[in-house]
Amino acid sequence: MKDKELTIDQKIKYVQDTLFVISGKWKLPILIAINQGCYRFRDIHRSVLPISTRVLSKELKDLEQNKLVIRTVYDALSKTVEYTVSPYCKSLKPLVDEMIKWGQNHRRKISEK
Amino acid sequence: MKDKELTIDQKIKYVQDTLFVISGKWKLPILIAINQGCYRFRDIHRSVLPISTRVLSKELKDLEQNKLVIRTVYDALSKTVEYTVSPYCKSLKPLVDEMIKWGQNHRRKISEK
Repeated sequence: MKDKELTIDQKIKYVQDTLFVISGKWKLPILIAINQGCYRFRDIHRSVLPISTRVLSKELKDLEQNKLVIRTVYDALSKTVEYTVSPYCKSLKPLVDEMIKWGQNHRRKISEK
Repeated sequence: MKDKELTIDQKIKYVQDTLFVISGKWKLPILIAINQGCYRFRDIHRSVLPISTRVLSKELKDLEQNKLVIRTVYDALSKTVEYTVSPYCKSLKPLVDEMIKWGQNHRRKISEK
């Protein structure tokens, strides 16, 4: 489906859908941390501080429900759990890249005055 | 500055900066509405319902502070006010386009089951 065919209401709806999934202070930072090699809860927590462990648990669950994160229990006895980003999560890359670029530029822009 | 030179902490910081500016349910829908020709408060309000007028006022002020929206008083007597997107706001276009595309695809993905 081409972007040009969308009405303004549809555009707004899709943007709101996207924001609903990635919005808030933590979800994208968590995905970036996992994607960069933080697979354990503790490591993710350390990378995304000052998030609380309670909020991190909730965010990881949301991300799992949205098919962006895969939670694997490796060892039932020791309950070793690892988080990885799903193949589908890669679809966020162009969006995240744009956000990094825009945020970097915006800092310059706002400090201009 | 190239993306490759950024550390994970910087990437997370820039993403958080961007989210801080555009996050929430309303800011991007408001910008889309203004960009599509809703210049008056009343028209923006109608396009972005069910936002309340109080929240819309606050969001417009935030967007003005972030240099994304320009507020012009055209007639001091009748207090005709128009909102337009700033030239700087156009820098958000690649990001918004990505969000529209991703949101559209995510709806399909989630309805797969």
